[in-house]
Amino acid sequence: MANEEPKTVPQQITMKGGDGPLSYAKNSSLQKGVVDATKEMIIHAIANNLDMDCSQSSSQTFRIADFGCSIGPNTIFSMQNIIQALEQKHHETNHGNSSTILEFQLFFNDHSTNDFNTLFKSLPPSWPYFVAGVPGSFYGRLFPKSSIHIGHSSNALQWLSKVPQEVVDCKSPAYNDGSIYCRGIEKEVTKAYVAQFEKDMESFLNGRGEELVNGGLMVILMGGVPNGIPLSHTAIGKFYDLFGSCLLDLTNKGLVSEEKVKSFNLPLYFPSAKEVKELIERNGRFSIESMNEITEQLKRGQPLPSTQNCISHVRAGFEGLIKDHFGTEIVDEFFACYANKHLQSGFVFGDNAVDNTLMFMILKRI
Amino acid sequence: MANEEPKTVPQQITMKGGDGPLSYAKNSSLQKGVVDATKEMIIHAIANNLDMDCSQSSSQTFRIADFGCSIGPNTIFSMQNIIQALEQKHHETNHGNSSTILEFQLFFNDHSTNDFNTLFKSLPPSWPYFVAGVPGSFYGRLFPKSSIHIGHSSNALQWLSKVPQEVVDCKSPAYNDGSIYCRGIEKEVTKAYVAQFEKDMESFLNGRGEELVNGGLMVILMGGVPNGIPLSHTAIGKFYDLFGSCLLDLTNKGLVSEEKVKSFNLPLYFPSAKEVKELIERNGRFSIESMNEITEQLKRGQPLPSTQNCISHVRAGFEGLIKDHFGTEIVDEFFACYANKHLQSGFVFGDNAVDNTLMFMILKRI
Repeated sequence: MANEEPKTVPQQITMKGGDGPLSYAKNSSLQKGVVDATKEMIIHAIANNLDMDCSQSSSQTFRIADFGCSIGPNTIFSMQNIIQALEQKHHETNHGNSSTILEFQLFFNDHSTNDFNTLFKSLPPSWPYFVAGVPGSFYGRLFPKSSIHIGHSSNALQWLSKVPQEVVDCKSPAYNDGSIYCRGIEKEVTKAYVAQFEKDMESFLNGRGEELVNGGLMVILMGGVPNGIPLSHTAIGKFYDLFGSCLLDLTNKGLVSEEKVKSFNLPLYFPSAKEVKELIERNGRFSIESMNEITEQLKRGQPLPSTQNCISHVRAGFEGLIKDHFGTEIVDEFFACYANKHLQSGFVFGDNAVDNTLMFMILKRI
Repeated sequence: MANEEPKTVPQQITMKGGDGPLSYAKNSSLQKGVVDATKEMIIHAIANNLDMDCSQSSSQTFRIADFGCSIGPNTIFSMQNIIQALEQKHHETNHGNSSTILEFQLFFNDHSTNDFNTLFKSLPPSWPYFVAGVPGSFYGRLFPKSSIHIGHSSNALQWLSKVPQEVVDCKSPAYNDGSIYCRGIEKEVTKAYVAQFEKDMESFLNGRGEELVNGGLMVILMGGVPNGIPLSHTAIGKFYDLFGSCLLDLTNKGLVSEEKVKSFNLPLYFPSAKEVKELIERNGRFSIESMNEITEQLKRGQPLPSTQNCISHVRAGFEGLIKDHFGTEIVDEFFACYANKHLQSGFVFGDNAVDNTLMFMILKRI
């Protein structure tokens, strides 16, 4: 073919594997704050929204799945919180008199390129639960019909299945010239990203709709923007601007070609709560039992991460993307550049920018 | 403690990971012969022994588990054979008129140190089945009650959960002086190995007894010895003799200590069909639907592997054990020594020795 198509095939985004100093396993304490902040909310949601009869077999096995689990340890904490909530509810429902022993089967899902070996090795020894790793994209089907009682997904649904093709096609009106993400300002670019997000969310909801039992719950945490605020005005937008400027620096140094940079965009979209609510209602397979923005709670509970921590977190999360598009040889140089800029600018997520939102939703399969 | 106990803690034996030239994934064609030879027998067994109603949910999901799956590709072939058998049976049971679509959920089980990453990456793209990896020892519980319809285990049950402590304790009457395996000749050594094997088989059958649905089938393939023949007279025994002699060579060269070698035994036991039959009957959770020795069929179907293939197979299977006990630095030297001896002796499994048996069993959960 004369014109090579831009690289917008479905992407298998995974966090940095292993358990070394640069790994996601060692650089996910920011996400841990989210897990802690939502623990009580999960217990409350299960206490109020789950019909314990949804696990109808005599042995009362609850099957719980984490969609987009990454490498740990946060997925392990999240699972523990859900189990604690189920046990409390079981105890209260039976006034402490039940002889039924609950069995839990926990499914950890992420792309087949995720480092499941590290995840499995980090499971607590003699954990009294049945465990399985499920490789595959959560935008497709992953489980048999009506086999999951509780689904969970944290910080995962902002990752699209792929970059919309138009935004890296310089002939398209949606070409995202000079930026690596959906800033939420350029109308055509935003339209392309929104279309991809809607398609992906629809696939996610349809898949989980098949897989969850009637009355089963989905616990979803996802990043977003306040209604009406473009991403570029938020802390995450400012971060992507800084991140993207490092690519231009490498181009100026002659280390990566301009074409390579122009064909790179982040497969990420941060919606508003309003957008997400409309999508779920339009899909019709789930009722929204609750929907909150928990940003303020998080802020109160968390000390600000150190600059070095921030830099390590960024690398753990984005190294795979950079490596896939630009090649292994550029990775160290790129993150050295990023670290340098981050330190120089005194950049900590959120300075001089609108705070992003973190949406916490409880959906029920209807 | 004054006396350190010999190292007989539960062992996580796994085959060599990755997909490089020395990996198990690239060096398991001998085991593939077994998969091929048993395909028709599996189809026959499922056609005659499985009540399709054992999957009672409306969607007809069959859950199939491979216990001791290793890295692939053989576990994938085995799963495919079982699925083919179930689909044929489904088609015949319904005279081709059923509108029910079967769903299959496949569980790949092995120790948490198994290379699941390589296994997941090698799954056929767009395989129309639900897949999960289950880390953990099959001598413990791995699945919720009554959740598996077909269990499979190939070339795995000869691996014990650990080396019996007495055989590496020089003060014990069961001390296995001068050998690294259960030759089947020294009475006390054999007694210790048999006791461990019986305990492990009991654990395996109890675990699967809980996990399989009523009427569910276990397909088991395992190596053994003809009734009344000690392992040391068989091809596998001769191989272990050669293997063990390399350790002595390394001791003579001063590369490993005599103590290290004396505290090393293989966590392997090859039973006779009679022993296995008695254990299953004593356990009482499964009926034996069929039990065959398929050695002759295998021989007819298979070309002899090349010497180099044999050597690579040995390394893929045993590198982990050698590394765990003697350390990484000795591994290359050890297998160079083994390759050398293998070539010099013109050793091909089975020369001048009684053939081992390969038992093929269909058990039904009663």
